Amino acid sequence: MATIMRAALLISLLALATFVCSATRYEPNWASLDSRPLPSWYDESKLGIFIHWGVFSVPSYSSEWFWWNWKGQPTPALVEFMQENYRPDFTYADFGPMFTAEFFQAEEWAKIFQASGAKYIVFVSKHHEGYTNWPSKYSFNWNSMDVGPNRDIVGELADAIRNKTQLKFGLYHSLFEWFNPLYLQDKANNFSTQDFVFSKTMPELYEIVNKYKPEVVWSDGEWEAPDVYWNSTIFLSWLYNDSPVKDTVVTNDRWGKGTLCHHGGFLTCSDRYNPGKKQNRKFENAMTIDKYSWGYRRNAPLSNYLTMEELISTFIITVSCGGNMLMNVGPTKYGIITPIYEERLRGMGDWLKVNGEGIFSSRPWTYQNDTENSDVWYTTRNMSGQKVVYAFVLKWPTGGALTLGAPIPGSTSTVSLLGYKGYLDYKKTDPQGMVITIPTIDFMDMPCQWAWTFKLTSIAN
Amino acid sequence: MATIMRAALLISLLALATFVCSATRYEPNWASLDSRPLPSWYDESKLGIFIHWGVFSVPSYSSEWFWWNWKGQPTPALVEFMQENYRPDFTYADFGPMFTAEFFQAEEWAKIFQASGAKYIVFVSKHHEGYTNWPSKYSFNWNSMDVGPNRDIVGELADAIRNKTQLKFGLYHSLFEWFNPLYLQDKANNFSTQDFVFSKTMPELYEIVNKYKPEVVWSDGEWEAPDVYWNSTIFLSWLYNDSPVKDTVVTNDRWGKGTLCHHGGFLTCSDRYNPGKKQNRKFENAMTIDKYSWGYRRNAPLSNYLTMEELISTFIITVSCGGNMLMNVGPTKYGIITPIYEERLRGMGDWLKVNGEGIFSSRPWTYQNDTENSDVWYTTRNMSGQKVVYAFVLKWPTGGALTLGAPIPGSTSTVSLLGYKGYLDYKKTDPQGMVITIPTIDFMDMPCQWAWTFKLTSIAN
Amino acid sequence: MATIMRAALLISLLALATFVCSATRYEPNWASLDSRPLPSWYDESKLGIFIHWGVFSVPSYSSEWFWWNWKGQPTPALVEFMQENYRPDFTYADFGPMFTAEFFQAEEWAKIFQASGAKYIVFVSKHHEGYTNWPSKYSFNWNSMDVGPNRDIVGELADAIRNKTQLKFGLYHSLFEWFNPLYLQDKANNFSTQDFVFSKTMPELYEIVNKYKPEVVWSDGEWEAPDVYWNSTIFLSWLYNDSPVKDTVVTNDRWGKGTLCHHGGFLTCSDRYNPGKKQNRKFENAMTIDKYSWGYRRNAPLSNYLTMEELISTFIITVSCGGNMLMNVGPTKYGIITPIYEERLRGMGDWLKVNGEGIFSSRPWTYQNDTENSDVWYTTRNMSGQKVVYAFVLKWPTGGALTLGAPIPGSTSTVSLLGYKGYLDYKKTDPQGMVITIPTIDFMDMPCQWAWTFKLTSIAN
Amino acid sequence: MATIMRAALLISLLALATFVCSATRYEPNWASLDSRPLPSWYDESKLGIFIHWGVFSVPSYSSEWFWWNWKGQPTPALVEFMQENYRPDFTYADFGPMFTAEFFQAEEWAKIFQASGAKYIVFVSKHHEGYTNWPSKYSFNWNSMDVGPNRDIVGELADAIRNKTQLKFGLYHSLFEWFNPLYLQDKANNFSTQDFVFSKTMPELYEIVNKYKPEVVWSDGEWEAPDVYWNSTIFLSWLYNDSPVKDTVVTNDRWGKGTLCHHGGFLTCSDRYNPGKKQNRKFENAMTIDKYSWGYRRNAPLSNYLTMEELISTFIITVSCGGNMLMNVGPTKYGIITPIYEERLRGMGDWLKVNGEGIFSSRPWTYQNDTENSDVWYTTRNMSGQKVVYAFVLKWPTGGALTLGAPIPGSTSTVSLLGYKGYLDYKKTDPQGMVITIPTIDFMDMPCQWAWTFKLTSIAN
Repeated sequence: MATIMRAALLISLLALATFVCSATRYEPNWASLDSRPLPSWYDESKLGIFIHWGVFSVPSYSSEWFWWNWKGQPTPALVEFMQENYRPDFTYADFGPMFTAEFFQAEEWAKIFQASGAKYIVFVSKHHEGYTNWPSKYSFNWNSMDVGPNRDIVGELADAIRNKTQLKFGLYHSLFEWFNPLYLQDKANNFSTQDFVFSKTMPELYEIVNKYKPEVVWSDGEWEAPDVYWNSTIFLSWLYNDSPVKDTVVTNDRWGKGTLCHHGGFLTCSDRYNPGKKQNRKFENAMTIDKYSWGYRRNAPLSNYLTMEELISTFIITVSCGGNMLMNVGPTKYGIITPIYEERLRGMGDWLKVNGEGIFSSRPWTYQNDTENSDVWYTTRNMSGQKVVYAFVLKWPTGGALTLGAPIPGSTSTVSLLGYKGYLDYKKTDPQGMVITIPTIDFMDMPCQWAWTFKLTSIAN
Repeated sequence: MATIMRAALLISLLALATFVCSATRYEPNWASLDSRPLPSWYDESKLGIFIHWGVFSVPSYSSEWFWWNWKGQPTPALVEFMQENYRPDFTYADFGPMFTAEFFQAEEWAKIFQASGAKYIVFVSKHHEGYTNWPSKYSFNWNSMDVGPNRDIVGELADAIRNKTQLKFGLYHSLFEWFNPLYLQDKANNFSTQDFVFSKTMPELYEIVNKYKPEVVWSDGEWEAPDVYWNSTIFLSWLYNDSPVKDTVVTNDRWGKGTLCHHGGFLTCSDRYNPGKKQNRKFENAMTIDKYSWGYRRNAPLSNYLTMEELISTFIITVSCGGNMLMNVGPTKYGIITPIYEERLRGMGDWLKVNGEGIFSSRPWTYQNDTENSDVWYTTRNMSGQKVVYAFVLKWPTGGALTLGAPIPGSTSTVSLLGYKGYLDYKKTDPQGMVITIPTIDFMDMPCQWAWTFKLTSIAN
Repeated sequence: MATIMRAALLISLLALATFVCSATRYEPNWASLDSRPLPSWYDESKLGIFIHWGVFSVPSYSSEWFWWNWKGQPTPALVEFMQENYRPDFTYADFGPMFTAEFFQAEEWAKIFQASGAKYIVFVSKHHEGYTNWPSKYSFNWNSMDVGPNRDIVGELADAIRNKTQLKFGLYHSLFEWFNPLYLQDKANNFSTQDFVFSKTMPELYEIVNKYKPEVVWSDGEWEAPDVYWNSTIFLSWLYNDSPVKDTVVTNDRWGKGTLCHHGGFLTCSDRYNPGKKQNRKFENAMTIDKYSWGYRRNAPLSNYLTMEELISTFIITVSCGGNMLMNVGPTKYGIITPIYEERLRGMGDWLKVNGEGIFSSRPWTYQNDTENSDVWYTTRNMSGQKVVYAFVLKWPTGGALTLGAPIPGSTSTVSLLGYKGYLDYKKTDPQGMVITIPTIDFMDMPCQWAWTFKLTSIAN
Repeated sequence: MATIMRAALLISLLALATFVCSATRYEPNWASLDSRPLPSWYDESKLGIFIHWGVFSVPSYSSEWFWWNWKGQPTPALVEFMQENYRPDFTYADFGPMFTAEFFQAEEWAKIFQASGAKYIVFVSKHHEGYTNWPSKYSFNWNSMDVGPNRDIVGELADAIRNKTQLKFGLYHSLFEWFNPLYLQDKANNFSTQDFVFSKTMPELYEIVNKYKPEVVWSDGEWEAPDVYWNSTIFLSWLYNDSPVKDTVVTNDRWGKGTLCHHGGFLTCSDRYNPGKKQNRKFENAMTIDKYSWGYRRNAPLSNYLTMEELISTFIITVSCGGNMLMNVGPTKYGIITPIYEERLRGMGDWLKVNGEGIFSSRPWTYQNDTENSDVWYTTRNMSGQKVVYAFVLKWPTGGALTLGAPIPGSTSTVSLLGYKGYLDYKKTDPQGMVITIPTIDFMDMPCQWAWTFKLTSIAN
């Protein structure tokens, strides 16, 4: 069948070609695709919310890799969990009808995401299990309209985000599916056939882009096969040239074995990618509030959730090095973002209300981490035509002074603390650096609890 | 996509052509396909068992068309049934996990089918709901391995039939699927596209033929689209030329709008086709023991099941006119052929033990229905080189005599009653016909209870 | 607590005593209770239908003793059945909500029972599992209103039987409950306490008698404890003296260890009691159409159901010896009497239409089983002031003659065959017996298929 | 039956009397019972954890009064919730098997409770639904062993608390049950009968006390009937005189209509009782972290949970006025104390580590709320033989000084801040009060975040 499908593809391309008009068009190769400038909204946004929801939210145990760890590469914990709680012939698909989503109200989610200060969301439209959270034409009886919720989840969320917030709407999509027999067959054929690609994963991608117009297409599940198998460059050239989101869409780097950290739009490199050094290309740190899982885990104790301190540290370091942070939440099978997640999201929002000035639209400064004080990270941006440097202090300075090794204050430099009135005194040190006097601040007047932003103007370097 | 797929098809054909060897090969057109002689085993078999089993066996209410009558063209009874017994968002696919099949033992079924005297079975591999009773590569998470039984039902049954009986194993397969979005899309395109055909229904057909080697391929669900859409003639030419069952397989006539009763192997013409007249081509009367449903109905009362008298009458008339009877049973969702069905099946077997001589390998005689006695139907066959005529009497003759209008006894003609010792006296009538003396038979010596076979030798016409 | 409860009992008795009026009253001892004449309707009725329905109809496997055979005295088959089909922590009570009864229509059952020719029914109001098929005050959340059907099953059936048929309505009730902790505690106390009796089983019995006015109170589950523990004689004296059914009610003999076959109303002696000899006291043969179970078994094959021949033989022998037959059916959890049961029930009705004259209101004759022909059984009754003897022939006589050893024909004796016109010739033999000439009967004129009744008038002995 | 049961009771009392030995014994009247001194551990403990878990945790919607608000006094929200999510005949008891508790590990709960700083727990053994969280002999098939978890939840938790913590173990028990027909019957009889009391609620109470030896018996559901109906004084006299916990047990005041806030052990007066004034008798403020429900609510948003500030304020005010606080958590049906609850519990523990000195074993001081600063509340206790006064400041003082109106410092008075090194300067004001100098404290050295305790020694008043 491979030959057939390949032929079909060629014809398809020719057909599409007839609709092409002009201008700079991207060609289905990495050189051309990588040359596309990343739409600016993305870099300015800094914080996104990732949402993993699917049939894995029913067992809600171990992680969203439940099926694989039960049946693909069985781990004792999952095998025992199934033995103890289900009849022996229970199958993964049998979980489908239990994905009831009865409390899912997209507008409630939208409000929480808005309150988090994030600027975009990336919602899992389909994970490796193959279940589509929209009524796909290509996933008969294994989608959210046919089994379980009886609803177009992607559609409802897209509408709510667009109608009720200013956030951008993005979609995650897994190229591969662990147990799809067409995929397994292609794989057994060393990916010389593409039946799976052309009957399932590609049609789905076109379908979600055309139907829901996501401004992030966050691909995953690429690592077992080369991009040629996945048809990725062809899809991306369509996405950039002709799709309804061609001008605004951003994508990541998971488009085929070897593309990770090399090709595509922004780079994700690995899960929880937080290099701690300035990166040449825009990257995204996709990480989770639950340290061990992207999908909701019913039995996760408090200690498995990152604290606000940890979240904000990670965020500051990521942004300082040029990245965005995509912070993941896992809703319950009945459609609720649990209070602990909500608390973390609102905590971020509260912090950003005070400190967002140094985050949004910022870019890496000359230094990321201070040379003397390892708890200080920098960003810079223009404010009213002036370059401003922001020093994020992860631990509140003790002893009444904050020593910074990196900035060289200019003659007109001012120092202030975001969320606190007035300017702070400082002394330049030689040849570089400064010592800022930390005032006695009444506990009730502290601008925030977790990390503090010193705003430095007219810095010489 | 239509163009693409059509192109794919052409290439596919060319590819297949390279494997062709020689001899008379059938071409993908009806003239050629219809010229194929029907393998003789089929005409000799006379009685087959049809089995409808699937997810529709879970609601087990109304009929196997449950889904359609609930959601496609809603009927009040089904809408109310769902409202009264399920949560509002319950979907048809949610029934899947309840198809547990826990008591299904293929060998037990095989024994019952064997006992019925039938010579073949036709098992529903996939009905219009699209659920495959085998682990199809083309029906991910909507098949009997992935949802519900967690078993290869077709495979288990094929093995049992082959290992434990002399019956032939056949498969029913529905070309269309009510709610498959790919089908609905092709339909919306006036069948100018064939995405459904090439990604679902054709691959499945090839898969079941290659994997289970059915000797009947009983197609259905053809009526909305022309055979060109279904790719039927191409499939059939492969089936006849190159498939693993090319020499023995028989098919029916449901291969595209307008083929019914015209093209294919044997003709089915309509459900419960029993024309009462000799047919030019071999036909099959596919009928049901439950008068109103092919799938099991949990609430069917006794009066909805055909009586043995009705079953045997229908069978005799069908065979007399040149047909086979395909008698349907509907197992329960837990895998049992209920006792009322078993009783009917064993009843047929008991009757055939006595009367099978006039049934199996018979062919229509000059007359089907007697000219004077409308309760008498005929067959004929060669026995030890002699032509024998069998007169099946649906009601036991009263008054000590049976008058037949059709046969012209020869000088050496003998008359006997199958299952009863000795010869019976008779008198020739002029110019045609005969009067047979019916002896006084002790009640306990009656050969059977429901229809009796008079064997006439050396009949002149 | 035992002392307390016993005390309560005494007070209770005194209280009741105040309501007593007059006439012959039965006292709570067997001598008095056994002296009560059995209401005549019962002996005249001959055939009753027993119905076992409850939570055991959900697993519907093995028998209505499912719980006991799973957890009480575990048998491998049941333990494995549970392991293979349910999660490990599944409890018996977890079956409750699955007892849905969605197709239960009491009037449909009533029609079938009516058609069977039976004159009364005995419905299981509560089996050893303790689940009450009515909304008992004493079985909170373990009854048919609170768990499962959400209906008063006993009430619906009582109404249908009374409104739509002439049958009497009776109730089965189990005194003990396998796993009721109060019972187990009383048992552990060697039945010196009666907490269970006074808080559960007695209140229930009073409740069903007062509420549903059953004309049969069919007790069971008595064998482990003496009647004194069960409070049986006190209950029965109330039932006979003061209950709303005091004039018409009949009871059986299962009221305490040692009462079986000795005390109470009619005797049941054992399950399937069919002694084959005339009994001094009225007895009832409580038997099952499914040979191995009283509750419905989803996986029972046809061979497990008694044939019509077997049923009618058993019935004739039972009646001939002075018994009634209580023929059991087990409905499905969804409320249907399956077609195989319906066929048997209607078969009985058809047979009784022809032969009922010799059954209903008959009594044992001098002889039960013929002295020469072991396939012949007798009854006798008065018809229009004349004593008539009925000879039931289980096998149709061959050779044109039926030889009977028992009857002594009188000079005006006549012989006829029920369902067949005219009289039959016979010859008296000496000193006793007769030979009846069996006419040649057209097959279609046979009065029935399974057993035949010869009516003998003016018999001298 | 009422008379009977009353009689039984008398006999019961006589029987018990025979086991009585000596000493001061409490009599079954309030004068006597109220004279019992409250065991001292209770007043010293200050903080308890209340846990509501039961079948109501399955719908986990609205509140633990789900059943009542659905069927007793139907509210639209619940009626609609059921209509939208369950089949029409679904009953409350049908929820039972879904109470799976698969993740329940009593030792994990114990660790969390320990970490909260609480000194006792009160676990709902049975709520108004009547379902017992232990295998009660008096709640057949409506308890945690027979339906759902298949476990002795009370037993597992009692063991874990005793083996792994120093906390006291207490049990909540509802006297009445909304829908128990025996209760409804007693109620219809104007509580002149006591069938429910003597067959269900009293036996249960004796059972849990004897079996699990709870040191708190927290009664509820008393308000519809007088204590005489409930048999309360008799039970309490047994509890105080003869039960296995007679020396240490404490009880509350919910023992019959009119006892609330008047009789029993400590007073609860109303849910969330926080009078803000010193009380003459020991009281308990039973309150909830989820503002609107005691049972877990799956759809409760973050804003429905009290913040740490709110919790600690309520706690301080309660303790200051002489109360204990019983802080409620609602676990999920699968047995998890969700992270938001865990966070609140651990937050309390963290706060108590610093501030517990002024809480545990404290008693109300002369003043509760400061006369000048309404954000200050007091306790007092002896430390090393010295009376110490603790001033809890709910808002951190601004302006470098804290003015207190109530204390009169003595000549040797010292002032310190719990969790902070050294003494603070202060000035006495005339005639009463003092002004404490608040030092500049580095943010990182703040002893806690939510309320601060100033320790005052040698205070003159």
